[in-house]
Amino acid sequence: MDVRHLVSTLINGIETCDIDAQDRGFQYGDGLFETLRIRANRPCLWSQHLARLAHGCGRLGLLMPDETLLRDEVDRLCRDEADGVLKIVLTRGSGGRGYRPPEDPTPTRLLTRFPAADYPPENRTQGVVVRICDTRLGLNPALAGLKHLNRLEQVLARAEWSDTDIAEGLMQDIEGNIIEGTMSNLFVVQAGILRTPGLSRCGVAGVMRARVMAEAEVLGIPVNEGRLGLRDLAAADEVFLTNSVIGIWPVRQLVGCDYVPGPLTTHLAAAVDMCND
Amino acid sequence: MDVRHLVSTLINGIETCDIDAQDRGFQYGDGLFETLRIRANRPCLWSQHLARLAHGCGRLGLLMPDETLLRDEVDRLCRDEADGVLKIVLTRGSGGRGYRPPEDPTPTRLLTRFPAADYPPENRTQGVVVRICDTRLGLNPALAGLKHLNRLEQVLARAEWSDTDIAEGLMQDIEGNIIEGTMSNLFVVQAGILRTPGLSRCGVAGVMRARVMAEAEVLGIPVNEGRLGLRDLAAADEVFLTNSVIGIWPVRQLVGCDYVPGPLTTHLAAAVDMCND
Repeated sequence: MDVRHLVSTLINGIETCDIDAQDRGFQYGDGLFETLRIRANRPCLWSQHLARLAHGCGRLGLLMPDETLLRDEVDRLCRDEADGVLKIVLTRGSGGRGYRPPEDPTPTRLLTRFPAADYPPENRTQGVVVRICDTRLGLNPALAGLKHLNRLEQVLARAEWSDTDIAEGLMQDIEGNIIEGTMSNLFVVQAGILRTPGLSRCGVAGVMRARVMAEAEVLGIPVNEGRLGLRDLAAADEVFLTNSVIGIWPVRQLVGCDYVPGPLTTHLAAAVDMCND
Repeated sequence: MDVRHLVSTLINGIETCDIDAQDRGFQYGDGLFETLRIRANRPCLWSQHLARLAHGCGRLGLLMPDETLLRDEVDRLCRDEADGVLKIVLTRGSGGRGYRPPEDPTPTRLLTRFPAADYPPENRTQGVVVRICDTRLGLNPALAGLKHLNRLEQVLARAEWSDTDIAEGLMQDIEGNIIEGTMSNLFVVQAGILRTPGLSRCGVAGVMRARVMAEAEVLGIPVNEGRLGLRDLAAADEVFLTNSVIGIWPVRQLVGCDYVPGPLTTHLAAAVDMCND
């Protein structure tokens, strides 16, 4: 048995698992998070995750942690395990009377390292089976795109199925537009064009989603961000899902349609399968 | 100095202020809360708060705590202070892979006693000044009405002003319907009819709101639950706000309109100013 002391949780730099019960993250979901892949003892797509966190801080009026401090803490968690998943939660900290934020808040940053995700390797090669969730995404431009801590919609959607053969569930907004998976973003390929739902009214703007779109641009593939419906899924040549931990998963079955991992999906999967920091 | 040991926080019955950082309340806002007034060492409107908590548990698939156990814990917190505010937070507890709830969750119940609210007494007698918030409420029928822990919209709305002369801010939904205050429900009186926004698409169905509606019915006052816009506020004879801690606050100024606490507001305020348990 390996008896090294493995640091796996840091709260404001201290090895502890205890959060103050009055933390606004717990009381109101007043905060943001990032989920990163650790590979070869390094956080993947670090600068992109950092940029999204800073953008979210700006939108919510949260104090962005010092980048060097944050990276030091990330490195502390990455040095003991070559592969894994790192989750960073940033909240407005404790205090404030009711909803009103305190005037001089001390943010809470929680970093947790989890073991590498144990998804079947076939998810990447053969693709996954996906369902459509009954739970809808609400519309709210003020929070759209952010990876904030108000995630009850995703919890309710993910609670809808327990069949392990189904890897993900797609969520529609309340008007019936397809937006994203419970934990992933969605792309479809139609007549050589890469299409993904716009996220101006709801949804999470994933770091891997942005990476795929940037990669497509480099490859000269036209990208269209806009409204997608169930009919667009049925008419798609290729469908795939993205997030920072899974990379790209081709979809092989969805609402009665079968797909095979297509050339564009495979091409993009190879292109993004690198660890940039 | 009084050196009695005053219990003010209980987590699953234990005197501690520490929440597990992996609690789903902190990670996702996966839970509910109730805010009660303590008066004469008793929780006000206990059965109504309990019923709402049970209803929320049903909607979110949370395990409702044993009612006797919960009341025992509430009484422990109420016995040391005659007056105060009691907040109950109930979450799905720790665990689960990502958003997916654990199969056999152990819920977390946090009970915190706060000092009695120090609002100016004139709020109840002369009324309050209210503003309209820029932050809009998103639309989501799946979560509408619930007092759940996803409260970023309220945090952003309450962060919009710091002028202590403004007691509350009203929030519109993304379509411009007036829904509620950041921490209160809204009623207007128009031609003898009591009107309050419907909460089927967003908003929190307050315990005091339900109590006011029930009281109005007893008094033979017609109640209309439906859509309200800014014009309805301008056309109102009386406007007031409700929540379990404040009871009823008449509105005396709002978007350029002045009101005086009217007879119906005064009547209802007296009627609900009793501690029912």
